[in-house]
Amino acid sequence: MESPSSVSLKWMKEGYRYLMLGDISAKAAHLLSLPKISDFFTKLIQRVSPKSYQQAYGEVYVTQKFLENFSGDQVRFLARSFAVPGNHLGQQSHGFRWPYGPVAIITPFNFPLEIPVLQLMGALYMGNKPVLKVDSKVSIVMEKMLRLLHECGLPREDVDFINCDGNTMTKLLLEAKPRMTLFTGSSRIAEKLAVDLKGRIKLEDAGFDWKILGPDVQEVDYVAWVCDHDAYACSGQKCSAQSILFMHENWGRSPLLDTIKKHAARRQLDDLTVGPVLTVNTEALLLHKNKLLKIPGSKLLFGGKALTNHSIPAIYGAIEPTAVFVPLEEILKDDNYELVTKEIFGPFQIVTEYKDNQLPMVLNALEKMHAHLTAAVVSNDVLFLQEVIGKSVNGTTYVGLRARTTGAPQNHWFGPAGDPRGAGIGTPEAIKLVWSCHREIIYDVGPIARNWQIPRST
Amino acid sequence: MESPSSVSLKWMKEGYRYLMLGDISAKAAHLLSLPKISDFFTKLIQRVSPKSYQQAYGEVYVTQKFLENFSGDQVRFLARSFAVPGNHLGQQSHGFRWPYGPVAIITPFNFPLEIPVLQLMGALYMGNKPVLKVDSKVSIVMEKMLRLLHECGLPREDVDFINCDGNTMTKLLLEAKPRMTLFTGSSRIAEKLAVDLKGRIKLEDAGFDWKILGPDVQEVDYVAWVCDHDAYACSGQKCSAQSILFMHENWGRSPLLDTIKKHAARRQLDDLTVGPVLTVNTEALLLHKNKLLKIPGSKLLFGGKALTNHSIPAIYGAIEPTAVFVPLEEILKDDNYELVTKEIFGPFQIVTEYKDNQLPMVLNALEKMHAHLTAAVVSNDVLFLQEVIGKSVNGTTYVGLRARTTGAPQNHWFGPAGDPRGAGIGTPEAIKLVWSCHREIIYDVGPIARNWQIPRST
Amino acid sequence: MESPSSVSLKWMKEGYRYLMLGDISAKAAHLLSLPKISDFFTKLIQRVSPKSYQQAYGEVYVTQKFLENFSGDQVRFLARSFAVPGNHLGQQSHGFRWPYGPVAIITPFNFPLEIPVLQLMGALYMGNKPVLKVDSKVSIVMEKMLRLLHECGLPREDVDFINCDGNTMTKLLLEAKPRMTLFTGSSRIAEKLAVDLKGRIKLEDAGFDWKILGPDVQEVDYVAWVCDHDAYACSGQKCSAQSILFMHENWGRSPLLDTIKKHAARRQLDDLTVGPVLTVNTEALLLHKNKLLKIPGSKLLFGGKALTNHSIPAIYGAIEPTAVFVPLEEILKDDNYELVTKEIFGPFQIVTEYKDNQLPMVLNALEKMHAHLTAAVVSNDVLFLQEVIGKSVNGTTYVGLRARTTGAPQNHWFGPAGDPRGAGIGTPEAIKLVWSCHREIIYDVGPIARNWQIPRST
Amino acid sequence: MESPSSVSLKWMKEGYRYLMLGDISAKAAHLLSLPKISDFFTKLIQRVSPKSYQQAYGEVYVTQKFLENFSGDQVRFLARSFAVPGNHLGQQSHGFRWPYGPVAIITPFNFPLEIPVLQLMGALYMGNKPVLKVDSKVSIVMEKMLRLLHECGLPREDVDFINCDGNTMTKLLLEAKPRMTLFTGSSRIAEKLAVDLKGRIKLEDAGFDWKILGPDVQEVDYVAWVCDHDAYACSGQKCSAQSILFMHENWGRSPLLDTIKKHAARRQLDDLTVGPVLTVNTEALLLHKNKLLKIPGSKLLFGGKALTNHSIPAIYGAIEPTAVFVPLEEILKDDNYELVTKEIFGPFQIVTEYKDNQLPMVLNALEKMHAHLTAAVVSNDVLFLQEVIGKSVNGTTYVGLRARTTGAPQNHWFGPAGDPRGAGIGTPEAIKLVWSCHREIIYDVGPIARNWQIPRST
Repeated sequence: MESPSSVSLKWMKEGYRYLMLGDISAKAAHLLSLPKISDFFTKLIQRVSPKSYQQAYGEVYVTQKFLENFSGDQVRFLARSFAVPGNHLGQQSHGFRWPYGPVAIITPFNFPLEIPVLQLMGALYMGNKPVLKVDSKVSIVMEKMLRLLHECGLPREDVDFINCDGNTMTKLLLEAKPRMTLFTGSSRIAEKLAVDLKGRIKLEDAGFDWKILGPDVQEVDYVAWVCDHDAYACSGQKCSAQSILFMHENWGRSPLLDTIKKHAARRQLDDLTVGPVLTVNTEALLLHKNKLLKIPGSKLLFGGKALTNHSIPAIYGAIEPTAVFVPLEEILKDDNYELVTKEIFGPFQIVTEYKDNQLPMVLNALEKMHAHLTAAVVSNDVLFLQEVIGKSVNGTTYVGLRARTTGAPQNHWFGPAGDPRGAGIGTPEAIKLVWSCHREIIYDVGPIARNWQIPRST
Repeated sequence: MESPSSVSLKWMKEGYRYLMLGDISAKAAHLLSLPKISDFFTKLIQRVSPKSYQQAYGEVYVTQKFLENFSGDQVRFLARSFAVPGNHLGQQSHGFRWPYGPVAIITPFNFPLEIPVLQLMGALYMGNKPVLKVDSKVSIVMEKMLRLLHECGLPREDVDFINCDGNTMTKLLLEAKPRMTLFTGSSRIAEKLAVDLKGRIKLEDAGFDWKILGPDVQEVDYVAWVCDHDAYACSGQKCSAQSILFMHENWGRSPLLDTIKKHAARRQLDDLTVGPVLTVNTEALLLHKNKLLKIPGSKLLFGGKALTNHSIPAIYGAIEPTAVFVPLEEILKDDNYELVTKEIFGPFQIVTEYKDNQLPMVLNALEKMHAHLTAAVVSNDVLFLQEVIGKSVNGTTYVGLRARTTGAPQNHWFGPAGDPRGAGIGTPEAIKLVWSCHREIIYDVGPIARNWQIPRST
Repeated sequence: MESPSSVSLKWMKEGYRYLMLGDISAKAAHLLSLPKISDFFTKLIQRVSPKSYQQAYGEVYVTQKFLENFSGDQVRFLARSFAVPGNHLGQQSHGFRWPYGPVAIITPFNFPLEIPVLQLMGALYMGNKPVLKVDSKVSIVMEKMLRLLHECGLPREDVDFINCDGNTMTKLLLEAKPRMTLFTGSSRIAEKLAVDLKGRIKLEDAGFDWKILGPDVQEVDYVAWVCDHDAYACSGQKCSAQSILFMHENWGRSPLLDTIKKHAARRQLDDLTVGPVLTVNTEALLLHKNKLLKIPGSKLLFGGKALTNHSIPAIYGAIEPTAVFVPLEEILKDDNYELVTKEIFGPFQIVTEYKDNQLPMVLNALEKMHAHLTAAVVSNDVLFLQEVIGKSVNGTTYVGLRARTTGAPQNHWFGPAGDPRGAGIGTPEAIKLVWSCHREIIYDVGPIARNWQIPRST
Repeated sequence: MESPSSVSLKWMKEGYRYLMLGDISAKAAHLLSLPKISDFFTKLIQRVSPKSYQQAYGEVYVTQKFLENFSGDQVRFLARSFAVPGNHLGQQSHGFRWPYGPVAIITPFNFPLEIPVLQLMGALYMGNKPVLKVDSKVSIVMEKMLRLLHECGLPREDVDFINCDGNTMTKLLLEAKPRMTLFTGSSRIAEKLAVDLKGRIKLEDAGFDWKILGPDVQEVDYVAWVCDHDAYACSGQKCSAQSILFMHENWGRSPLLDTIKKHAARRQLDDLTVGPVLTVNTEALLLHKNKLLKIPGSKLLFGGKALTNHSIPAIYGAIEPTAVFVPLEEILKDDNYELVTKEIFGPFQIVTEYKDNQLPMVLNALEKMHAHLTAAVVSNDVLFLQEVIGKSVNGTTYVGLRARTTGAPQNHWFGPAGDPRGAGIGTPEAIKLVWSCHREIIYDVGPIARNWQIPRST
């Protein structure tokens, strides 16, 4: 790995790097906008990460838009600094966002294009020298994308791309000592890396994401469709997938659940609207369901069966989109809480219901959760929204009638909250926060007063 | 410790908290501006932390100015959020700086008032619930200050103030699980805490701070006085103290070193312009000096003797302000580098000289250092400044003829760079970065198009 | 008047001016917080501007809080600039907010303390040299305040305070050629000044301010009280006073109007909760009412009579708080529109009602208005709010159940929208926009490439 | 012209407009990056506006880069608002940049593509409905560009493009009453329009732009080349062209003037490196030169003759690149000042020299100038720069060894300073300042305290 200061030097000395990266972004965005190329990447993603064409295309589209956002001068605009007058003539303090220098990026299997491109380009935009590791199962997508970036003008030495397993990567990190490592992936590995790297890390790990339906029932068809999409698109293998649904009793009296059930039933292996679960096998999924059904009052709403007639290997999971109802009172019990809020990276959700006076219990359930990634509050009642937002800490929180948990684009921040190690992705704020640190340079050029005299020692 | 979400709730629900904290700040600033009160705190600081009246008063003054800065509406202005239009009518994304909730603050002996007040108020301003631990040797200062804040209206339950040793504090942190811990102190403990708390930490630890004198020799008297002040004020017990001085050969031919020597000779125990060293005893200080003097070409410039005629206990250090010259070539040798760049928290500095063509060697020496806190480049040559700034990564870097390493005020950022765990202190940027995290709330209230139809599954 | 560049020089050269103004602000805020002094100013305001103690005290309080906001370093923080990397090493562009130099401020009778202090200090904070003219009827308040500011350290030569009539002031402006003139007052004079000064002006003139009550009827008592306050406090002599009320028919069926009537009846001359109207005499007020009552369907809701048993001179107006109902259809007729929307700077409002399907007519009525100062939309229905906000252009617009038209504090922008000449008051944004202009300074220091060769001519 | 509020509605309601404009910008930028298209526009510009290929291509390139800058989400990022907590739960103030609605743009002959595209797109980005008038002599360029924008997706009804003379345009403005008019052109017409439109205007008019060479003589060849370029490229028909050169006596002793003379002699009609002057005929140019030469001590440095062997019509000017030396003392005399500082929109500059102790005279000369557009201070002496910058008020000011007066790109602000009517062009700051106004919307949704009671009247 290159040394930090020679990287900073490059950053500082070569204004043209900003312009070069702005050019590369404009060119790469244009290429991704061509149907032939976007179709190529969409299908390549589908080859390694089980999702529908539309979902895979979503990655390509978001990546294109992100690159458009940093065309032209927008890379150098990220390096915008500020200055404030000092205490006397000739003094002025400047606040910069400074690159770390050598950094590392580790990204998971479920978004083989979007996550590595957005984080990699962010690291480059801010002046760092990144080494990139993408989950080996899917790294072919990023390999092709790097070639496209090279074609657009990215110097080959600007990014080190590595293919290895996790242990090897940890060893590399401990030896190379990158100043910062961005990790997107499972909580378990995140915690281990945080210790190994003594906290020099930014994390975006999993979430047990919740959605609350407020007292004002409206547009049931729309809300049901969003629920299906949030829970089951990409077979639930998004860190933002809806893991639990808290329905106000008013919604319980609506056709909501029946409609969600109908949507779930439309999903099929053919077009990958449901597909293999890469991190939990079928047996474990069914076992989890059965444990939940032992909780008093719980019931299977739909799904819960293994998929049939398929060639999915046994090391993966394959079940129907599933929803299990558990009573709110039971969820809150110490014996059940951990079980109910266990994150299942698959097409699986918990559903529960609350009465008007039970909102504090719902908020209490949220408060006990560990990870705070996405959330949704489906309501247009401003006082209800105010109450729930004020009492929760999730990072990316959608509120209002059209609230969802998934589908974060490139135009707003996506990331967890409540943790100083939390990373963000995509927006100018996320790039600056994750990929640079504050450096203050105080100019103090004089003149020194003609009548200056040596003061007393202090 | 209070739970995080109930803290956020308070933050969100009670706009008046911002106003209350603005009022408290205005009142406390006014009280600290009264001579009787500022004198009280100045002398109290002197009782526990060995420094001159002027240096101790500096803490009180900076604290007063900091509190003035967050009078009136300025606390709520810290909570300023932004919003961007979404993809359709009714959608808008909002970026907030959100409080962590329960947080911890641990501060050292050398600034018993300034560091804890600035960090504590920052934590409160952003909506957190802090527990504060100040080094027990000096915590009486902060105890008195808390009483003053209570008098100005701070509710007693808003801050938990704890007196204990480090082990007990670690135990408390591991059990109470604050979402964020700010630690200011030694690198050794910082690294340990980073592991214990799995990286949920912001650090401001020690620095081996350097100053470079550029080729343009001007205002020798002024520069010499600043060097004396940077190296020896507070007996060098500032994390920003000048630890090494790189002189261009042009300065070597000037009366600079002689003038610094004269300044150092003016320092005396009487008025604490030199005083006890709390973390290294006399024997260790002299040993370090002797080791340095064994390096070929090195020599004692001045000082280097134990103080006499005093009652400083033997567990502390007591030496004259000391400067040791070591040749640049020797500093860079692997065998010497660690010894020469060992941080001595006392009145002790290394001096070296470089020729015009040796600047790359100087930059190489800087690059190898671990901590990157403060630095100074004394020159008004814009191309020289550009070269050194671009090749270094220190956090608070003073440049220009009047550049210094110490004496950071409340009006600009102070803190290390190049480390994602790095904290800052004092300014709006520092407060927001250390004491809050990004939360994105996306309003998406509709309306839903009248002709909306259920899309295909994806 | 001083020349512009010598003023800029002072600004640029003397960092200490920022600190001095921060100190003055902190001290003056503290003095205004003392009951003895705030009481003095409150009663002095009452002597010259007819309003209740509470309303007059409001000015003092807002002024105090404004001064607190710019204590300490906050004046220099207003001068914050930004910088962006250039096209090559050594180039960097800086965006500053630069002072105009010599400027003028002209303020009206109705806020004798708040408006002149906030604008004057804003002008000073940004580095200008102001001449200040306050309406001569009330200028004694500002004279006393200037003495207080001098006492706090403001140099006497920093502000020129002039007492004269309007013609003399115009003559002075045409000769002295201030680079910018801030005018707060009547639309008629504003338009004349805009021509005289060839547009080198910022304006905050009158407004025919509207309030809309949406379909969701809630908290009738509260809303009625706010309506009374907005229409009749300070006898309606605020540029933000509620001039017309559009009620959804649902509110027409509530006790709202009866409750407003009761509130109006509580007002009395004794405590100046109703008082003299300085710019329209009684006869003219009654004539206006009578003209309105000739519109088909219109009716007097309450008030409409001259006050009795008082010693108010005949050149002023003295009537009961008055409300006249006019049907919406009639308001929109070309023959009536100008009459109905004529601004009456007194305790006088129009009331009308609209049915659910008549919202477009209401929006049409708003659109035809000239001035766009304040407005209120009383509703918590997010889709209704969205519709009205999107179709209106008023500057300071309050929305939600607690929406009001008056009572703007120092913590948010107050000013008109939709006009490039529009001024703002009080906030950092307002100060920067009104009292400074953009200046871009591009540093381009080299080095020039060693192999640079003279290019072809272009 | 469309009504303002229906425009705002469109802005507010249709988030997609931002996305549409981002798409159009990306596509149009891509098209302009294609050699075939950029060549077409470059030559089309040359057909109507006399400048070299390189200079004309510069317009196309800057336009392309500007459009890249507002690709993707960057248009909506321009509409970024901010929010601050209010005084109680449920209150929050939001600051928006709001469109004016109907606006007008009037642009001159010398930049037929860059100025109208940048201002037009800025107006659209911020949500306005513009009518555009380009100088009829050159409007064919913009007509073609509008067709390209339509091809990229711009709806035809979004821009009204008008071809007419100035009187007709004034009449249209007075009738249609655009809320804002952007005028780029001569000072004379600017002042007239300011009165006609009562100040509802932003101006970017001409400038008598100066360059100062400081005491530190370096890189004479480079500086001479920049001087030639600043004074004579586009035959001096840029509002940023160097009109006067103040040389420190040290430069007087260098080969600078001789080198500039050589560069000037290279210019020729063939490739339009010198060409017709559109606003001053040859006779008037020679007359001006002769008047200057009557000033005692003045002399012709080079040029000063009419061009020969050409077919330039007599209504235009045609002279060699010309420089006239006038002694500093004479420039400052009241009788000469107006003559010397008369702006000549052609290849014509004044040169003068100052001694070390005459800097105050130079600054005095600057101070007396009317327009404050561009300026340059060629020096790397930080104290010298500080002095000149602090005492001047020009808008776009280049400083440092490589300082120039012309060639402003799209990445930094270009515009005058010191005038509240001053416009800017190109950057996000310029777009927001010129094409939008502040609107503050305060949400205040409650809840109202259960124990709320009706207060006393005030």
